[in-house]
Amino acid sequence: MDFSTLSNHGTICFVARAPVRKRVTRASDTPAKTPAAPSVDGRKRVVVEAVTPEIDAGRFPARRVVGETVSVEADVFADSHDSIAAALLYRHERTPSWTAVAMSPLVNDRWRAEFPVTELGRYVYTVEGWIDHFATWSRQLVKRLEAGQDVKVELEVGARLVEAASQRAGRAQGALRTDGAAQDPTRLASLAKALREGKTDVDAKAIELVGRHAERDVTPYGRQLEVLVEPVKARFSTWYELFPRSTGGGGAQGAPPQAGRQGTFKDVERLLPDIAGMGFDVLYLPPIHPIGRTHRKGANNTPAKPGEPGSPWAIGSEEGGHKAIDKALGTLADFQHLVKAAAGRKLDVALDIAFQCSPDHPYTREHPEWFKHRPDGSIQYAENPPKKYEDIYPFDFETERWRELWQELLSIFVFWSEQGVRVFRVDNPHTKPFAFWEWVIAEVRRAYPEVILLSEAFTRPKVMYRLAKLGFSQSYTYFAWRNTAYELYQYFTELAQPPVREFFRPNLWPNTPDILTEYLQTGGRAAFQARLILAATLGASYGLYGPPYEAIEARPREHGSEEYLDSEKYQLRDWKPDPGIRELIKVVNRIRHDNPALQTDRGLRFHYAENDQLLAYSKSTPDNANVVLTVVSVDPHHVQRGMINLPLEELGLDRDRSFQAHELISGARYLWNGPRNFVEVNPFSIAGQIFRFRRRVRSEHDFEYFL
Amino acid sequence: MDFSTLSNHGTICFVARAPVRKRVTRASDTPAKTPAAPSVDGRKRVVVEAVTPEIDAGRFPARRVVGETVSVEADVFADSHDSIAAALLYRHERTPSWTAVAMSPLVNDRWRAEFPVTELGRYVYTVEGWIDHFATWSRQLVKRLEAGQDVKVELEVGARLVEAASQRAGRAQGALRTDGAAQDPTRLASLAKALREGKTDVDAKAIELVGRHAERDVTPYGRQLEVLVEPVKARFSTWYELFPRSTGGGGAQGAPPQAGRQGTFKDVERLLPDIAGMGFDVLYLPPIHPIGRTHRKGANNTPAKPGEPGSPWAIGSEEGGHKAIDKALGTLADFQHLVKAAAGRKLDVALDIAFQCSPDHPYTREHPEWFKHRPDGSIQYAENPPKKYEDIYPFDFETERWRELWQELLSIFVFWSEQGVRVFRVDNPHTKPFAFWEWVIAEVRRAYPEVILLSEAFTRPKVMYRLAKLGFSQSYTYFAWRNTAYELYQYFTELAQPPVREFFRPNLWPNTPDILTEYLQTGGRAAFQARLILAATLGASYGLYGPPYEAIEARPREHGSEEYLDSEKYQLRDWKPDPGIRELIKVVNRIRHDNPALQTDRGLRFHYAENDQLLAYSKSTPDNANVVLTVVSVDPHHVQRGMINLPLEELGLDRDRSFQAHELISGARYLWNGPRNFVEVNPFSIAGQIFRFRRRVRSEHDFEYFL
Repeated sequence: MDFSTLSNHGTICFVARAPVRKRVTRASDTPAKTPAAPSVDGRKRVVVEAVTPEIDAGRFPARRVVGETVSVEADVFADSHDSIAAALLYRHERTPSWTAVAMSPLVNDRWRAEFPVTELGRYVYTVEGWIDHFATWSRQLVKRLEAGQDVKVELEVGARLVEAASQRAGRAQGALRTDGAAQDPTRLASLAKALREGKTDVDAKAIELVGRHAERDVTPYGRQLEVLVEPVKARFSTWYELFPRSTGGGGAQGAPPQAGRQGTFKDVERLLPDIAGMGFDVLYLPPIHPIGRTHRKGANNTPAKPGEPGSPWAIGSEEGGHKAIDKALGTLADFQHLVKAAAGRKLDVALDIAFQCSPDHPYTREHPEWFKHRPDGSIQYAENPPKKYEDIYPFDFETERWRELWQELLSIFVFWSEQGVRVFRVDNPHTKPFAFWEWVIAEVRRAYPEVILLSEAFTRPKVMYRLAKLGFSQSYTYFAWRNTAYELYQYFTELAQPPVREFFRPNLWPNTPDILTEYLQTGGRAAFQARLILAATLGASYGLYGPPYEAIEARPREHGSEEYLDSEKYQLRDWKPDPGIRELIKVVNRIRHDNPALQTDRGLRFHYAENDQLLAYSKSTPDNANVVLTVVSVDPHHVQRGMINLPLEELGLDRDRSFQAHELISGARYLWNGPRNFVEVNPFSIAGQIFRFRRRVRSEHDFEYFL
Repeated sequence: MDFSTLSNHGTICFVARAPVRKRVTRASDTPAKTPAAPSVDGRKRVVVEAVTPEIDAGRFPARRVVGETVSVEADVFADSHDSIAAALLYRHERTPSWTAVAMSPLVNDRWRAEFPVTELGRYVYTVEGWIDHFATWSRQLVKRLEAGQDVKVELEVGARLVEAASQRAGRAQGALRTDGAAQDPTRLASLAKALREGKTDVDAKAIELVGRHAERDVTPYGRQLEVLVEPVKARFSTWYELFPRSTGGGGAQGAPPQAGRQGTFKDVERLLPDIAGMGFDVLYLPPIHPIGRTHRKGANNTPAKPGEPGSPWAIGSEEGGHKAIDKALGTLADFQHLVKAAAGRKLDVALDIAFQCSPDHPYTREHPEWFKHRPDGSIQYAENPPKKYEDIYPFDFETERWRELWQELLSIFVFWSEQGVRVFRVDNPHTKPFAFWEWVIAEVRRAYPEVILLSEAFTRPKVMYRLAKLGFSQSYTYFAWRNTAYELYQYFTELAQPPVREFFRPNLWPNTPDILTEYLQTGGRAAFQARLILAATLGASYGLYGPPYEAIEARPREHGSEEYLDSEKYQLRDWKPDPGIRELIKVVNRIRHDNPALQTDRGLRFHYAENDQLLAYSKSTPDNANVVLTVVSVDPHHVQRGMINLPLEELGLDRDRSFQAHELISGARYLWNGPRNFVEVNPFSIAGQIFRFRRRVRSEHDFEYFL
């Protein structure tokens, strides 16, 4: 289609909208003979542009967690050759006054400063720049002196600049000021006098003193940017998912895998020591609400036979909806007890927020206007033609009553927050409007700023990024399907680039109840090892759908499917964990806990391995006090060897001295030397290795073998 | 310096400014119990972001010339899996109504459409997107039918969508519409009926018809962007610079090189056939105003002796200032005559706008407030300590009377525009405030939208880019100092990237009166050939400081200097052109004229030459109808050979068929085959080669030698 002009298309907006930015001038049909007066302050000579971090021209906040710093950069420059100065201004949204930090020049007109974020919520920041006339004068004075020029007139120029600053300092005396500043007018007056008497050595302290009080024709950046500050767990978290209803069996005690008594919150409580002991800090439960009966799904996604429990995502029955609890799991009091018990072990219980209804959900009767109706009067079920999901009714977000729907959905978050839940895993957010998420997340955070939300959107990249920008703390990723070393390198390089890294926090899951990848199906124990080590070291946040992972469960429902056979989505299971993989989980999580470099996604670097079956990468803290190298073999079937090439200087290692590579899983210690070092990965032992580097502090005389 | 809090710094703005963007919600000190009502329309489900071209979030316009198209791209997507549509809206700033163009999806949620720019001035454009419910329905219907599902209810759903569109079409009947559209309500009604009767084949035309009348919940991008449209010469121009006062001699006639009668505008007129005949279309003259006497500079930048003419950039004497003409060159009438005569040969006379004054300029007496005064009462001369330029007074753009100064400087542009000048070369714009240029250029264009301005800013990259963003049509570059193949590759790759290419148009000068590079000083004739060919083929716009270039003048004032010996800046010269280089200039300019690929900087690609002394690059038109490969040797001393590697497919060439490489300087024709082809460049003949590729249209049976 091609619209020639808008005149015949009533629905496209024809009206000339007001321009976003007021322009200095506008062309008109006839050349104006009278020039327009300038609408700007012509004496503001400094330009401030290209401020980072900035996401979509400031439309969205950058993201940090409590205790981090925000490093702000900007291009700041002016015409001519005057000295300039720039300041970073910041404040917490609840603080009316700004704090200023002087920016330092880097190269190529780029300036930088940073500020700490110590409180939850939003900080606002911006940049401004100005000409520093006294610094310009002082710099030129040095050159004139070096050239042996007569500087008598110049010293008078300087003295007058100082006097002007002195007068301004004096006028500001009434205002609140720190100790010592009261002396500034006097100090400045003395400086002016000294210059007139021929003083030519003007030190940095004097320049700073004058600069502080001199008139500044400040150019503001023009936009105020924001950073949203979340709890540390938004950045560094270790998730364990299980179905509470499957916890009634006995697992390790050897009950048959298909059987199992209906588990309850009390059973989950009994598992808390194990889960916390393995090093997890989030326990994520699929929906815990009453499950619908109409079109209920049974084992392996067939129609349910009587007595089958149904999918927990078919939310709502006559017993209640999103704010009710499935009686089979326990009571609300049991749930509250579980949340408290988990907290006692530093575990957050994460609830699944799935905004959809079974046909039996109370909403379908009480609020039919929130659903789409078919011409035959029935409610439209979920479908992705030709597939039909008749046990699920999606909400109609295009309903006229969307405001009431939004408020009700918000109240679900609020209800569970009131029960003590602070972590939510949100199911399929990409099938609900973006505007809804921006609003509902902001509202939840307004009341509970410590809330963490994980976006479960396995969809197109720009949609996933948008959801992160809108406020989700963490996001599922394509990690499960990136299996070759090159794919992993490419994907995690993309995630580590600005601006993506400023708003998108990956949470890596090797498996989920919906995803048993071909790699896990076919790779055996080594594949489970490799994917665990990758997830735990590539991602500061990762998670396992734990019981089947511990059991090395690899059987798909059918060939070519990523669904588990006898999936827990539709039936109870009793799992028998493999002690080896369970121990590896524990060790890897302890390594994460002990190494700050693994607790952030900022310091990731990939290294050339001279073997395309080996993926080598390091993470390091900014000061290189903690440097961790991971080498994983993506080949679960053969021993792989290769030389790993390290940029020693970037990692804070000395090119001329050997260093210790301490392999943290086995405990082995190697003495490495230079940038190229040999690594062998044996999938019949452990499919990956995690090295912590330590600089040598001893000389050769300290070694026994030297004696 | 480090400011702790703002409370003791009166000069930094403390006040919380109003946020640029209104936020949906705001955190408050106490968690709100009453949720805020959504402040957006929750049913607008489409997102529009990352629109290109967009410079600094729309702060500056992109740049095009008359007759080009603007290809606009955007990320457009929605939640869920509905079909979406997007439109590009555009209008000329003088046209109140928008024209809409349907956008087409590319990959990864990226959409594209383009619009032509046919008039000078600014165009405004933006993007909007919406859900296309009928297209969604139709796509799903096909899948349902393929799966053999009963679609009775679905056809009714579709019929209702069509009916709604039909009603809207009927209601819009009163509005102005194109022929045929009057039948739309009837057509839609028939379609609804047909669906109810079981019609299942809905074609694209029907989808378009429904889509045109269906209700659209349109999401606008939120910003209106602009493109500034200039004359074609802003993109493709060939400049020749000369000092009119040196044209009195006889040049080719063999007058001694140091001598020369004072040249006049009449002498310049006599040279016009030569200059136009060599293929130039802009004749740029250094300042033509009365020259100051105080501190006048003489030959080789020494104090002037009596009778020496002085530097034309020391503007102003008792005879007048920036609107006056140096009597020695002629009268205003002579100048007007020259401008007209040049126009008759399609040459634009470009004037030099140098906003600075000699101590004798009338402004220094009439407007002392526009200059900075030293404590001893003198006016501050120009300096870059320890260097002093006492023959030049800069304006003080920080004067309280900056508004009057700006208006006066604008009036200089207007005065010369009134004399018919449409091209200005602006001297040292980076020493005047950015805000001034944005205002003055907009004001000049308001009256004379066809004006072209060249920025002579040899300064830091971000300053040069900023000046281009502010409105300069073209910019001097670092070209003169990029001499190795790798340096040239790097620099021109940077210039060819978005967003730089959207606002910065390079104008390449191998030499200027200030720049005789070491490469030209030491490389002999081959260096002059190489730099000419590079400038003329790397840049759609280039220029020569002609007479010394034609004379292969290579003598610097002193070793290590880039100043010409006996520079024309301070004295008259008489030049003797070298017939060989003059002929090469003529040939190269003819090649530029004949090959559209060389008339734009858009289609530049570099190619691997297997010899780091050879630089190989092609330019091509978007349809590959014109593909020109240039190979230049940057080594002026030895023959260089290498294999050039061409991406045949990208250049529209067939991998399996030979093609003709027609060398346009020598006229030689080669038959090339495959991606790797041999080139030899002999600096003792010509230091570069320019090939035009032609696809073979004949088969081997057409060759005589085959018979």
